[in-house]
Amino acid sequence: MSDERDDGGNDRHDGDGHDHGAVDAGDHGDHGDHGDHGDHGDHGPDRKEFRDLATPEAAHEAIASLDLASDPESVPLAEARGRVLAERVDADLDVPGFDRASMDGYAVRARDTFGADEADPARLELAGVVHAGAEPEVTVESGTCAEISTGAVMPDGADAVVMVERTSQSGDTIEIRTAVTPGEHVMFAGADVAAGARALGPGTELTPREVGLLSALGRDEVTVRGKPTVGVVSTGDELVRPGGELHSERGQIYDVNSYTVAAGIEEAGGEPRLYPHAGDDYEEMERLLVEASEECDLVLSSGSTSASAVDVVYRVIEARGDLLLHGVAVKPGKPMLVGRVGESAYVGLPGYPVSALTIFRTFVAPAIREAAGKPEPRTATVAGTMAVRERYAEGRMRLMPVGLVERGPAGPDGGGDAAGAGNVLVYPVDKGSGATTSLVEADGVVVVDPDTEYLAEGEAVEVQLFSPDVRPPTAFGVGEDDPALSRLLDRLDRPRYLPAGSRGGLRRLRDGVPDFAVAAGPIERDPDAVDLGGWTREWGLVVPAGNPDDVTGIGDLADRELRFVNRDANSGLRTSLGNAVADLAAERGVDRHELVEAIDGFDRSVRAHESPARRVFGGDADAGPGLRATAEKLGAGFVSLGEQDVRVLANPGRVEKPGVIELREVLRDFDDVLEGLAGYGGE
Amino acid sequence: MSDERDDGGNDRHDGDGHDHGAVDAGDHGDHGDHGDHGDHGDHGPDRKEFRDLATPEAAHEAIASLDLASDPESVPLAEARGRVLAERVDADLDVPGFDRASMDGYAVRARDTFGADEADPARLELAGVVHAGAEPEVTVESGTCAEISTGAVMPDGADAVVMVERTSQSGDTIEIRTAVTPGEHVMFAGADVAAGARALGPGTELTPREVGLLSALGRDEVTVRGKPTVGVVSTGDELVRPGGELHSERGQIYDVNSYTVAAGIEEAGGEPRLYPHAGDDYEEMERLLVEASEECDLVLSSGSTSASAVDVVYRVIEARGDLLLHGVAVKPGKPMLVGRVGESAYVGLPGYPVSALTIFRTFVAPAIREAAGKPEPRTATVAGTMAVRERYAEGRMRLMPVGLVERGPAGPDGGGDAAGAGNVLVYPVDKGSGATTSLVEADGVVVVDPDTEYLAEGEAVEVQLFSPDVRPPTAFGVGEDDPALSRLLDRLDRPRYLPAGSRGGLRRLRDGVPDFAVAAGPIERDPDAVDLGGWTREWGLVVPAGNPDDVTGIGDLADRELRFVNRDANSGLRTSLGNAVADLAAERGVDRHELVEAIDGFDRSVRAHESPARRVFGGDADAGPGLRATAEKLGAGFVSLGEQDVRVLANPGRVEKPGVIELREVLRDFDDVLEGLAGYGGE
Repeated sequence: MSDERDDGGNDRHDGDGHDHGAVDAGDHGDHGDHGDHGDHGDHGPDRKEFRDLATPEAAHEAIASLDLASDPESVPLAEARGRVLAERVDADLDVPGFDRASMDGYAVRARDTFGADEADPARLELAGVVHAGAEPEVTVESGTCAEISTGAVMPDGADAVVMVERTSQSGDTIEIRTAVTPGEHVMFAGADVAAGARALGPGTELTPREVGLLSALGRDEVTVRGKPTVGVVSTGDELVRPGGELHSERGQIYDVNSYTVAAGIEEAGGEPRLYPHAGDDYEEMERLLVEASEECDLVLSSGSTSASAVDVVYRVIEARGDLLLHGVAVKPGKPMLVGRVGESAYVGLPGYPVSALTIFRTFVAPAIREAAGKPEPRTATVAGTMAVRERYAEGRMRLMPVGLVERGPAGPDGGGDAAGAGNVLVYPVDKGSGATTSLVEADGVVVVDPDTEYLAEGEAVEVQLFSPDVRPPTAFGVGEDDPALSRLLDRLDRPRYLPAGSRGGLRRLRDGVPDFAVAAGPIERDPDAVDLGGWTREWGLVVPAGNPDDVTGIGDLADRELRFVNRDANSGLRTSLGNAVADLAAERGVDRHELVEAIDGFDRSVRAHESPARRVFGGDADAGPGLRATAEKLGAGFVSLGEQDVRVLANPGRVEKPGVIELREVLRDFDDVLEGLAGYGGE
Repeated sequence: MSDERDDGGNDRHDGDGHDHGAVDAGDHGDHGDHGDHGDHGDHGPDRKEFRDLATPEAAHEAIASLDLASDPESVPLAEARGRVLAERVDADLDVPGFDRASMDGYAVRARDTFGADEADPARLELAGVVHAGAEPEVTVESGTCAEISTGAVMPDGADAVVMVERTSQSGDTIEIRTAVTPGEHVMFAGADVAAGARALGPGTELTPREVGLLSALGRDEVTVRGKPTVGVVSTGDELVRPGGELHSERGQIYDVNSYTVAAGIEEAGGEPRLYPHAGDDYEEMERLLVEASEECDLVLSSGSTSASAVDVVYRVIEARGDLLLHGVAVKPGKPMLVGRVGESAYVGLPGYPVSALTIFRTFVAPAIREAAGKPEPRTATVAGTMAVRERYAEGRMRLMPVGLVERGPAGPDGGGDAAGAGNVLVYPVDKGSGATTSLVEADGVVVVDPDTEYLAEGEAVEVQLFSPDVRPPTAFGVGEDDPALSRLLDRLDRPRYLPAGSRGGLRRLRDGVPDFAVAAGPIERDPDAVDLGGWTREWGLVVPAGNPDDVTGIGDLADRELRFVNRDANSGLRTSLGNAVADLAAERGVDRHELVEAIDGFDRSVRAHESPARRVFGGDADAGPGLRATAEKLGAGFVSLGEQDVRVLANPGRVEKPGVIELREVLRDFDDVLEGLAGYGGE
């Protein structure tokens, strides 16, 4: 059930076997028949349920029925790139506006050159000169010619140009050594664009090339489709706008959706407008939604996953607008609302960022593009095969976020093939409710049919990339997090790295998904993995600055009243610590478990290499495992317990992959990477 | 030779068999040995030659050797979309910053639920409530629980959440009907992003997804790569900026390159800066180039094709800068310059717009993207076959602009196939020197090797699209231009129409390239073409308003001193006029040629349906063939000579193509299209 909740807090019914009844727009505030949770304070009757889910097609239709279009506007040509013509542009002048010489040479009457050749040139009297950008002051009579520059106006009487290379001058006589036909080397007025001609049609997107044609027509302003104005109203007592002060102890988190959705609006050709953040207060939310509806073509509400915030939005839309649809049968994104507020269209996005952006991309962005007149981007898809088996049986269409990894050219073990679907492995990126890192760890989505129960390992799938420019990472690694590794990754072209700990990395490497794993400490390695290099790091206990408790080692943690915070079991630091505990137990002749039990907080684990140190630094613990480098960076105290190896281990099938070759090269000479990192050493 | 000139006026040597010697940067102003044109005024010794052309690779290297990079800058997150991170972003806080409930339900000690199930629920005392966005005021002791909302802070003592659906309340006692494990339905602090972890690497382009992660980290400002500032300096006495007043009689044309190249700079991730237009004056150009070089990372000069302007630029760069390369072996685009002015990089673009934009796209845009940190766009290519034979033998790499037309599904004649390279026909778009319409009539380029002598009809080629979003037109037509047709085209999705006259259209339709042709008047049609519909239009002689010369018909043109202006021979109007002349000759019993000779200007032809009328309106002629609709639109007089049919004729192999079906449907009911067009009628 837990992954049911990826849509936000108001999504709690599928598959639990209880019938809480559907809520529709007119049926608000009285659900006493909802049985076992009808009286749970703010879980109670005001909560919205989404049982009669609309199909994705119905959701598209509901949004399409709203009018998001803005009025056309006139923009300077210099700002017209990317805009879409609102009306046809007809030429109102000839281009060029005059008969134009297209070569340097002599303007002549073609008849005067008939029969001329190298052996028997025609001789014409030079009657004058015509420069580009000047009005001709000469008329070419029979038997005469005028010197002319490329781009200059053909003088009266002349109907052709003889290129200078086929002529020679002697005094005022020009020898013409070739015959030309009327019109030769002349671009006639209107030959490029004729006055009155249709130059560009309505709906044309203006790239530099269309800007060129508009320039040629002398246009410095152009009437384009208006950008739909899209208001973003965010709600939720627990959300704080980025840049603001965060009180984690009160459960505050940063508002992810506002800026994210605004960027998406801009990308789709709309004009985002962010409104001040509202809490869960009904009056404030109503005021903001009404204000936004008066100023915008479309209003999006977005933000909180909390039940009360969602309820407030729902109630305001019911009171001040019109709800066309609530709930759509997709995962993630179920609790979507579509309707109107005043004259404006309205879409309510789910609270969780991945859900919000998925709904935005799938349903809202196409409508904004349509209103802006922007073409749908060419769907960029990549064929691949599932790297793992993925179960799914929820009866909703799933837009499964996935990452891509290329196998690259076959290595000595023949583990890859150079091209085709078999070369791209596809793995689900599902970090559960509310994880924002999933946003950047995925490359696109696989659309999974509601009836599909699972995708088999090796099954062929088609990935819709987030944009046509998305490319799989050059090198994909999983494993221990480490400050030296962060620096190494900065030197690679387009790496992706998931900090899943040493054990997590080695496990996934054995499954054949990543290109490389990074393992720290005494961990059992895959004998087939190819060691690309590594370094050593000094580890131990991070303690408060000055080591006020005078900690000398692990024994103190067991013997004294000290609060410990540990790393998780996937971490190489934890493994080294575990070994040190076992050694101490042996030394003391006690059971290992007994020692562990005596350490307050041994099972309290946190996720990244700096996390224990930050807990100590923040006063939440007296000691935790960490690196000397981390202690120095944070200004904490440090009790050394030893050194551990960090090794970069390649997938044996990927050693010929360019990104892995790049990694190996960077590893060969990286002493400068370690500079300033206390306790670090090269091999 | 004439298509040698597509690069601009300073390009006149290849293949003419004369050796004018190479000019290099230090060898300026003294070329008395250049023989036959050494003394032609401004064609003379100052002209620059491009004989020792650099390879395209050398040109790329020369530009790569210049440093275009700008300093990093800090931008608000709301403006960061599309920018590129200048440095790594590490998380400086845990996300979430607290252990967070991921379900609505009850926070418990997991141990208290062990063994609980539907039959034998655990009973816990309700100790309090925790809301999202609020600090818990309750501690969960053994035997108690706290109601909790999704997103709320886990209260002290609790280590798991039981979802509300698995509970029931009775007074202050909560029945827990399922067992949970420690950590269940809890997202631990730092589980999404741990403080200290590497979040985004340098060089990451910021899409909405990265904006999301930065929001989660609380960043409202971010350090990004600077956009390289690129100055555009335009030159040429004959150029006028769009919007300015044009004096065609002096040979002025609008400056196409400045705005076009500025749009290209923007597209590549640079910041364009347009400088005031300079003429051909050395001091002004020097002042502008130096000013631009002080303010910009890269200076582009661009504009005129005229020899004197090109020379001025050349001399300024020699005097104030450093020329690394002049002339590159590509067509179009040969006369490219690469060097430095002061501290800035410098590239001189050719004068003709197609050449300038090709050089910009091929050599300059990649360097701007590199400096801006933008990835090269995924090369979008389309496989197709040549629709016609194309000769080429110039020893330069050719970047041949081409248009695409899809054959679409097979029609009754089996003329097309639905997919694959055979479905896309590729035809060269080469309208010769200086045509700006080529900019929008092409979809991409085919790179033709210097050694290729020709591309055969049916030969497979690969087209590099101008951008990944370029799609072939939905319907491609060629033929007569007509005001009703312009309106019809506005109703189609993405049409392309080349106004090549009725004969031109029918000729190309017989060659099998376009989807449809439009033919007006008594013109011989391909019996296989499928008639999709049409209309009639009234034609005759356009004369000045009020018909001051009292013209009554063609006879007056022959009998009196009237200046005539004709349409070109491809036009259906011209054919109808020719027939009327032949009828009159027969009536008078004279030879047709005699009558034609008697009409002053019968051979003086202009290109589009409005062109003769505009000449008459402008006082350059006393009469010309045209439409009643045109005469009314321009407020001119009109002498009717009859009605002519306009027919829309489909390529028999394309009748099932969606764009042709759309055209046929629009033609079926288009009376409103004709509204307000005088002299027009439906079928």
